[in-house]
Amino acid sequence: MAVFESTGNWISAFAPATIANVACGFDIMGFAIDEPGDIISVRKKESAGVSIAEIIGDDGKLPTGAEANTASVAVIEFLKGAGISYGVEIKIHKQIPMGSGLGSSAASPAAAVLATNELFNRPFSRKALLPFAVKGEEVASNAIHADNVGPSLLGGFTLIRGYNPIDIIHLNVPIDLACAVVLPQVEIRTSEARGMLPSDIPLKTAITQWGNVGGLVAGLQMSDYDLIGRAIQDVVAEPIRRTLIPGYESIKSAAMKAGALGCSISGSGPAVFALCKGRQTAQSVGYEMFSILDEMGVQCKLYVSSINQKGARIITT
Amino acid sequence: MAVFESTGNWISAFAPATIANVACGFDIMGFAIDEPGDIISVRKKESAGVSIAEIIGDDGKLPTGAEANTASVAVIEFLKGAGISYGVEIKIHKQIPMGSGLGSSAASPAAAVLATNELFNRPFSRKALLPFAVKGEEVASNAIHADNVGPSLLGGFTLIRGYNPIDIIHLNVPIDLACAVVLPQVEIRTSEARGMLPSDIPLKTAITQWGNVGGLVAGLQMSDYDLIGRAIQDVVAEPIRRTLIPGYESIKSAAMKAGALGCSISGSGPAVFALCKGRQTAQSVGYEMFSILDEMGVQCKLYVSSINQKGARIITT
Repeated sequence: MAVFESTGNWISAFAPATIANVACGFDIMGFAIDEPGDIISVRKKESAGVSIAEIIGDDGKLPTGAEANTASVAVIEFLKGAGISYGVEIKIHKQIPMGSGLGSSAASPAAAVLATNELFNRPFSRKALLPFAVKGEEVASNAIHADNVGPSLLGGFTLIRGYNPIDIIHLNVPIDLACAVVLPQVEIRTSEARGMLPSDIPLKTAITQWGNVGGLVAGLQMSDYDLIGRAIQDVVAEPIRRTLIPGYESIKSAAMKAGALGCSISGSGPAVFALCKGRQTAQSVGYEMFSILDEMGVQCKLYVSSINQKGARIITT
Repeated sequence: MAVFESTGNWISAFAPATIANVACGFDIMGFAIDEPGDIISVRKKESAGVSIAEIIGDDGKLPTGAEANTASVAVIEFLKGAGISYGVEIKIHKQIPMGSGLGSSAASPAAAVLATNELFNRPFSRKALLPFAVKGEEVASNAIHADNVGPSLLGGFTLIRGYNPIDIIHLNVPIDLACAVVLPQVEIRTSEARGMLPSDIPLKTAITQWGNVGGLVAGLQMSDYDLIGRAIQDVVAEPIRRTLIPGYESIKSAAMKAGALGCSISGSGPAVFALCKGRQTAQSVGYEMFSILDEMGVQCKLYVSSINQKGARIITT
């Protein structure tokens, strides 16, 4: 009989991919889409400590040590925060491509904390889980930011007003807002994409950016699609990072021609998103974006989605 | 009999003082208060061209040449825009102290274009008058910005999303939002205060600022006073410009202690504003701010006001 035999049933949670930055909202805005998403399963074990039992879908790329993996670090932080001395065993099913700009390293800790909270009969509100998930995501990106973790865990379109403490605001989502995302098969590491950005920017550029941030928030709150479209402009990261994405100008131009409100890089790329009024428009826009990459011979995935208002959810596997 | 005798009746407009920047919203946000305000009177004259007949309340400081004065330049731009060849004569009654940070150089052109539009039977909508007034204000500040002119002309709390073309958004104003303003008798020139700011800022600082811009816009739209309070922070201009204002730290601390949501520099100062929930709180906050300056022996004016939703208005003099 094994002394460290695991006990109890597995609890699983799904957390969706997210579009962070949303053009002007660099490091502060993000929204969840319906798919893809990561699935994390947890169960109690008799021995203390957190361990990873299995990882699938990562092509062997993710660290298996509990101190280095975003999901397990989030669980460790959760247990510390809750003052729980039980051990937890974790299974990770990656479905969001890594280095895609779709919040792959944020969805796993988001799903992990939701599943673990369920496992211990919800000692925390969903919002109170956020700091644990943020700590998990930090392991992958070497920086604290919550613009992916926030919407992946909580759903919807979120604004991170500030970080001391994390101040996350749920924005209104206009009823017909939809999104098309193309993901060319080119890997970009968040830390590398971040390293491309200058440490200082012209004040004038910053003012343009925060004018658009104000416009985007106002447009969402007022369900003013035209204003949303005018505000989806990024003068800080996009001019630098677009060079990482094959055919970026053509993809964007095809999206706008097909009726997108705006189009920009998702997170640090290479995924490119377009916000649209209506899911049907998002379908056409997605098709046009996909076609550009297809014609260039670049392998690519397409996702079309409404804004996912639910965020992470418990699932039965 | 004078050949160039002026004809017709005077039409007068009042345009209110404004609080621009509103902490985080540097160069993009502003709101109108009830008083003080400038009064501009216009009448047609038989000869072409624009001339200034009288200026009072400026201690002789304002330029009297039509090409150099904010009000007359705005009228010149209006006439050009409307294709009107009539001449216009202008009287200026300054009531907003100059170099105060209360949008003195913006209220005069705002009143001027509203009065002139009335004089010629309203060829333009109020919003369409904005670019003419902005051109007028440019003469005084050597830069195009509309964060004072916008709310002075249109009223309310406005966001300038961008400038090509001017994209001005009316934000929601929570019903109990009120404002206290103290104006120490120290003159600051906008162009000098602007010169103090660096041309580049750290990206990290910019992100903090646009997180707060998003938060302030969301807080206004949601009538969330706490969020408004958390977002009224300026990490760009205030840390530099506060040195221009005697006792700034004490004024701000007194305002917060008396229940203000937030407190910062109005425009480029030296006026200091505090946003409050409720006019009664604004009264107490204003009194405390005033007392600090009074105890320091600094002469000072106090204004307490709701957010002025009407902006410039035609008056009978």
